[in-house]
Amino acid sequence: MTQDQSDFEPSEDQSRRPAYMPSSDDEPNEVANRIEEIPAADGADVLEYLPSQQAADVAEYLDPDTAGRIISEMDPAMAASVLTDMQPPEASMVLAAMAPDDAVDVLGHMQITAHDAIVREMEPDEAEEVRQLEQYPSDTAGGIMSPQVTALAEELTVHEAIEELRRLSEELEQMFYVYVVDKRQHLVGVLSMRDLILARPDRRLSQIMRLDVASVPVTMDQEQVARIMRRHGYLAMPVVDARHRLIGIVTSDDVTDVVEEEATEDLQKMFGAGAEERLLSPWYFSFSRRIGWLQVNLGTAFLAAWVMMQFEDVISALPVLAAYQSIVSGMGGNAGAQALAVAIRGMALGESGPRLLMRVLYRESIVGLLTGLAVGLTTWACSVFGIFGYHKYLGHPVLIGFIAFLALLLNHINACVTGVLIPFVMKRLGFDPAQSATIFATTFTDCGGFFATLWLAEKFMPYLR
Amino acid sequence: MTQDQSDFEPSEDQSRRPAYMPSSDDEPNEVANRIEEIPAADGADVLEYLPSQQAADVAEYLDPDTAGRIISEMDPAMAASVLTDMQPPEASMVLAAMAPDDAVDVLGHMQITAHDAIVREMEPDEAEEVRQLEQYPSDTAGGIMSPQVTALAEELTVHEAIEELRRLSEELEQMFYVYVVDKRQHLVGVLSMRDLILARPDRRLSQIMRLDVASVPVTMDQEQVARIMRRHGYLAMPVVDARHRLIGIVTSDDVTDVVEEEATEDLQKMFGAGAEERLLSPWYFSFSRRIGWLQVNLGTAFLAAWVMMQFEDVISALPVLAAYQSIVSGMGGNAGAQALAVAIRGMALGESGPRLLMRVLYRESIVGLLTGLAVGLTTWACSVFGIFGYHKYLGHPVLIGFIAFLALLLNHINACVTGVLIPFVMKRLGFDPAQSATIFATTFTDCGGFFATLWLAEKFMPYLR
Repeated sequence: MTQDQSDFEPSEDQSRRPAYMPSSDDEPNEVANRIEEIPAADGADVLEYLPSQQAADVAEYLDPDTAGRIISEMDPAMAASVLTDMQPPEASMVLAAMAPDDAVDVLGHMQITAHDAIVREMEPDEAEEVRQLEQYPSDTAGGIMSPQVTALAEELTVHEAIEELRRLSEELEQMFYVYVVDKRQHLVGVLSMRDLILARPDRRLSQIMRLDVASVPVTMDQEQVARIMRRHGYLAMPVVDARHRLIGIVTSDDVTDVVEEEATEDLQKMFGAGAEERLLSPWYFSFSRRIGWLQVNLGTAFLAAWVMMQFEDVISALPVLAAYQSIVSGMGGNAGAQALAVAIRGMALGESGPRLLMRVLYRESIVGLLTGLAVGLTTWACSVFGIFGYHKYLGHPVLIGFIAFLALLLNHINACVTGVLIPFVMKRLGFDPAQSATIFATTFTDCGGFFATLWLAEKFMPYLR
Repeated sequence: MTQDQSDFEPSEDQSRRPAYMPSSDDEPNEVANRIEEIPAADGADVLEYLPSQQAADVAEYLDPDTAGRIISEMDPAMAASVLTDMQPPEASMVLAAMAPDDAVDVLGHMQITAHDAIVREMEPDEAEEVRQLEQYPSDTAGGIMSPQVTALAEELTVHEAIEELRRLSEELEQMFYVYVVDKRQHLVGVLSMRDLILARPDRRLSQIMRLDVASVPVTMDQEQVARIMRRHGYLAMPVVDARHRLIGIVTSDDVTDVVEEEATEDLQKMFGAGAEERLLSPWYFSFSRRIGWLQVNLGTAFLAAWVMMQFEDVISALPVLAAYQSIVSGMGGNAGAQALAVAIRGMALGESGPRLLMRVLYRESIVGLLTGLAVGLTTWACSVFGIFGYHKYLGHPVLIGFIAFLALLLNHINACVTGVLIPFVMKRLGFDPAQSATIFATTFTDCGGFFATLWLAEKFMPYLR
């Protein structure tokens, strides 16, 4: 009667290869027949797994509706590559079968020539709809909304409204609210399906609708849309143009996509990997997204090495200091990254502002002091008990341990404070708080760690050996 | 008519302090009067901003319904602290006014004595509902579901069903689907509101309902629930107990919460910060969550330092090697973290499996080779052009630059490969892929960087100075 978990989610454990996955000698029509029988999301896995040209061959065997459902579930970049490898007339039929926002998403990942060849094959009204949607940047309300929004005229009666809903398409199934518009398509009210069911059939929508309908402008950044919807617990929100005409709807599954996308971008940007890189991106894409910040990082690494080289006499005299300074800078790097991670996620969840910053800085100073104390004492103890042995290069183990202790204390406070300051400063300067944050943070903790250890060692040098 | 963006989201720019924020000499009743007028989410900001006892005083001035709406919007840990500081009878009324899943979420953050004092004050049926929900772990379907699910008996007619829906509460507004159950509350079918509107009034639900209703067991991990709902594009999913009785519903806003929670946990776990830490966590909480992995990290830092100390003669003879080895290990650390970030996010998005691993390892080997080449050549050039100057400690700049080049090449490949392997191995061993991943990765890149630089330098030592 009802489906069991194991039935409808066969691909959950991906370490076993599902039975529907093709082998290399399957013909395209065999694969097509097989994936018609399984859920679209699983069919999408099959097409993503195949080389693009083979996937295109399979897709051409499918009827456009099925192909549309499957391709909607694929990664948009991969879907674009499959559609590019199809014949343009077939590809345009598949795109026409998809939800317009999904279709535009895929078209946005195509080369311009393939894009135009396909749009040229579309029906005029479909092509027009695509062009309408393509004018909105993909990271705005317009880029994530669906244009298929249920709008009813305010002068309709409840009875007429229900008749009208019957005429509308299957899409309505995913509808929570019915939006009410005036003659010029301005958004003027909202009704839930429940309002409609409960109202007397002869009342006009303008009499029973709620007037306090919140909407977002089509140009609003997708992150802000997501924040508003989550903050107020909205499941759907109407999107309006500059003249307050209803042009689309954003639903809470769009919000989930935004949240997930932002989380991925945050994490990858933190390390200066490109926001767009994915696990199966080709190597040249990954290389091009990573190398820039690595070269910047090389600059900061040379800076830290330069700090170290100001004390080359100290290191030459007592090479064990090179070991201790690497511990002090490494530990600082980790303590800083912890502070950074909490700060960046906190800011992603919408918390910021100067007053908050003061509270967080106070907290981090204490945490830096305490973790520095704890880690420093452990290091001191290891030094006293001769973790590197006792011989000519190792100096006075108690005193050298004390230097490491002091340096760790200072560098942990440095790490926790800069770990919080960096994303706040980046944001204030108009950058993404996460952008390459670890590279900047590591610069501070490396330079700080090297300087603290070696400067202290230089001061104490007469007593160290 | 409709609200403008700037009206209903006054607190979006948090760098300016909103007018509704209290100042220190406001009386609790003044603050209470003021926050009754503003959206619940903004009221929640006010209560979060106040010290817990003051917030509790304010909440006691509010009527329980308003207080419930505001406290539902607060961070659950902060809400728990405010309710703990209220009188138990008042607190229990506020909790009774909240959605049961939100109330249980807050109760879960309380000390056991405060929890019991409040539950004791509740009406018997409310207390029973709380106890029911509390039996489900918070990270399962049962922990995120709402028990307020619309279930209608299969023998009802469409007309009777609509009558029944009219009797049900305001909660129904957020309803997408009507679930159909048999006499023993087993989930047997589903109807959309549209199905109900379009059907003839005298038909029975059992005749018009759809039988292929997907459900999740109450014990399923919340991440898996989120993955299924996102994969299939469900806006809501019914939750059933072991006997397939309908007991709750998970909606797509719950899924957004799960996705965001997991993203925060992933990032913070990567650095060994606690998954639960937040920007305003108290210092002792932050300290307790961070210190454990820092001490582990200290152990790995000592391991790397020990590798370095195997070559203390080399460093003493040519201290500039300490600078180069810090560059080689630091760059490796960053290259590894980039690979790690992409791998961890990819796995969070549901991609894994041995076949995928081979493809990703292949990609990362190439990316490591190429970034190592690029960064290594830059370093070599810097060395030849005398970035650290030319004098007695600096050895042969061309040869020493060549050693740095080779070491960077090797360590970048090491970094990219281990950066991917670590989360895959952690997952295979049954751990969270993100758990302390950077600490393990840094161990490999530090040890690898130190060893590669110093071992090569030892081999070439006769020619270096």
